[in-house]
Amino acid sequence: MSSPIITLTTDFGLQDSYVAQMKGAILRIQPAAVIVDLTHAIPPQDVRRGAFVLDGGVDPFPPGTIHVAVVDPGVGSARRLVAVEAGEQRFVGPDNGIFGVVAQRLQVARVVELTKSEYWRRSVSRTFHGRDILAPVAAHWSTGLDAAAFGPVSSLPVAVLPWNRPAREQDGCSGEILWADAFGNLVTNIPFDLITDLLEGTPQVTVGGTVLRGIRQCYADVAVGELVALIGSHGRLEIAVNHGSAAERLQAGVGERVCVIRGPAP
Amino acid sequence: MSSPIITLTTDFGLQDSYVAQMKGAILRIQPAAVIVDLTHAIPPQDVRRGAFVLDGGVDPFPPGTIHVAVVDPGVGSARRLVAVEAGEQRFVGPDNGIFGVVAQRLQVARVVELTKSEYWRRSVSRTFHGRDILAPVAAHWSTGLDAAAFGPVSSLPVAVLPWNRPAREQDGCSGEILWADAFGNLVTNIPFDLITDLLEGTPQVTVGGTVLRGIRQCYADVAVGELVALIGSHGRLEIAVNHGSAAERLQAGVGERVCVIRGPAP
Amino acid sequence: MSSPIITLTTDFGLQDSYVAQMKGAILRIQPAAVIVDLTHAIPPQDVRRGAFVLDGGVDPFPPGTIHVAVVDPGVGSARRLVAVEAGEQRFVGPDNGIFGVVAQRLQVARVVELTKSEYWRRSVSRTFHGRDILAPVAAHWSTGLDAAAFGPVSSLPVAVLPWNRPAREQDGCSGEILWADAFGNLVTNIPFDLITDLLEGTPQVTVGGTVLRGIRQCYADVAVGELVALIGSHGRLEIAVNHGSAAERLQAGVGERVCVIRGPAP
Repeated sequence: MSSPIITLTTDFGLQDSYVAQMKGAILRIQPAAVIVDLTHAIPPQDVRRGAFVLDGGVDPFPPGTIHVAVVDPGVGSARRLVAVEAGEQRFVGPDNGIFGVVAQRLQVARVVELTKSEYWRRSVSRTFHGRDILAPVAAHWSTGLDAAAFGPVSSLPVAVLPWNRPAREQDGCSGEILWADAFGNLVTNIPFDLITDLLEGTPQVTVGGTVLRGIRQCYADVAVGELVALIGSHGRLEIAVNHGSAAERLQAGVGERVCVIRGPAP
Repeated sequence: MSSPIITLTTDFGLQDSYVAQMKGAILRIQPAAVIVDLTHAIPPQDVRRGAFVLDGGVDPFPPGTIHVAVVDPGVGSARRLVAVEAGEQRFVGPDNGIFGVVAQRLQVARVVELTKSEYWRRSVSRTFHGRDILAPVAAHWSTGLDAAAFGPVSSLPVAVLPWNRPAREQDGCSGEILWADAFGNLVTNIPFDLITDLLEGTPQVTVGGTVLRGIRQCYADVAVGELVALIGSHGRLEIAVNHGSAAERLQAGVGERVCVIRGPAP
Repeated sequence: MSSPIITLTTDFGLQDSYVAQMKGAILRIQPAAVIVDLTHAIPPQDVRRGAFVLDGGVDPFPPGTIHVAVVDPGVGSARRLVAVEAGEQRFVGPDNGIFGVVAQRLQVARVVELTKSEYWRRSVSRTFHGRDILAPVAAHWSTGLDAAAFGPVSSLPVAVLPWNRPAREQDGCSGEILWADAFGNLVTNIPFDLITDLLEGTPQVTVGGTVLRGIRQCYADVAVGELVALIGSHGRLEIAVNHGSAAERLQAGVGERVCVIRGPAP
């Protein structure tokens, strides 16, 4: 039987021992766990960003992987904690919207409220449920328990934060920048499959006052230092600079409008 | 038998390969090791900070975990290297104060000086004992050897750096900020159990010129953007801003004085 | 049989899920993999820096370790991807110079071009071959396959980026700064074995307008705050400040010239 995999997504950063404390709590219960950092660099309290990063990161993992997400500004308050089965993946975290994006893309099979304290740390702080509830529950889940052990199955759907959807018209699509990655690539909310037909020919992509002609396949399809629009590895339209940072070049950030307009036929 | 766990705490940062070199050196000797980063973001040469972060991070780990700490500005000089058994945990590192805080909190059972070079890397550099001595010794220790294999048991206690203790009076307690975490939460040197009686009623907490009324239970106990005093997950008094950074708000840093004064009875 | 070890060296940073996606892709094929981050902080697209960091990091790892390197600005273009056997180590990545430094130091036994798509992810993006080709190939390699399974053995040597070699004369050696590490230590391109004879006596080391007398053995051989020249743990001449940053002190960076001149006999 292969080792259970547990990933961690948090806004804790790496300067303190918080992430390590979660790992210790997991290993205490499940010594065989393979623990993978998804990222700990979600901006503090930015549940929306966490939801998108989590959604973009989980697909390569094997079926049954448990993804623990702790961007949890409401820790200690009345927000519920949940275990979620969606697609082939499993999730544990606060039901504050962090699972909203992935739950709209993957088929949610079950949502369980974490209420059974026998699966928690013996003494639970009011400020670190990641270590005291979520890590232990994930570890127990990975030992083969059914999620229903952790509390009642809920009929309430997973919480979803409102976010702007791209608007599709016959000859175009408008959306916005979701985030800039570490390279300065600007990732939009426009998924590949929404604009498949526009990719034929030479569509025109507008961001800020800048117009790009054509959607390319890779960064190296344009000269070094040039702007390029392409479909990124996450399956979304992305604006980049070959060997550079589009975020710096365009001085564009989250929420900036991006338009795609159908171009002349090929 | 479960895999041995080894944690690493250093001031190496993550931009170079130093941390990875220690992991390679461990895996060469103990291929079954589960290696966990406690943190590598201790400020360079800041042994005191390392001592507090290590102390705050180790409790969630299973008994027998080996914690390797390398904040070691004296590397290559005459300072001794030690293996320490304290509480349920084990430690390996320079005896420069890095274990001083945890050794005052947990019961130290044994201190061993690392002198037996047969457990070191064949060729030992003068500048990287983390890779060449400490990682190999930790790896050998994790295979089941007794610590006494690594050198003589020492009767000298573990080194402790001087640090300001909180001062308790009948109706109050004064202490100081130890560090700001990545959220900007200001962690003090005042432990929960020193002020238990003051928590009844509505104590008054002063930091810089700011006065807070009451010690709460979680960040969400105050409105978004408000300052809050609470007992953090490390069991120490902490000053925070709900959804924000107390370090920025108060422009307060390490060493800033913090006072708690008994409030009116509840 | 011990678990296969796979290291990752990239310019992805840790703020996005890219590194985690590679790990998921590895674990899907090789659940027993022990995955170690060498570093993900190579400056974006800086293949040269990646080549030196990789070279400096691999030796402590056990024989047979697979090192995946993804600093790949040409992703999606015609550059070839390779598996390389060199010394006791194995490598997977783009053949863009990233393996040039290690391949000149270790004996290259075999170079294989990655062309057999049955070992790749089913659907391969044009912008993330790290996840879609390199991680899966490394995972398959770690299961015991011969490298020749992945494509044709190549007679072309591994690509090497031009870099300035140190110049040796009878009574001296001149080289340059390769990089500053996280401590601000300035690492040069002058290897220990090129200047062994100069280390006797008190050689004079010049960097910028500053002259240092003697090459010491460790940082603590000089007073706190003093500049020191020594042979670093990577086996190269290094300029440092005890408890400080030589990069800041000297305002020196990559490419700055460094000279060693024979000193009076001891």
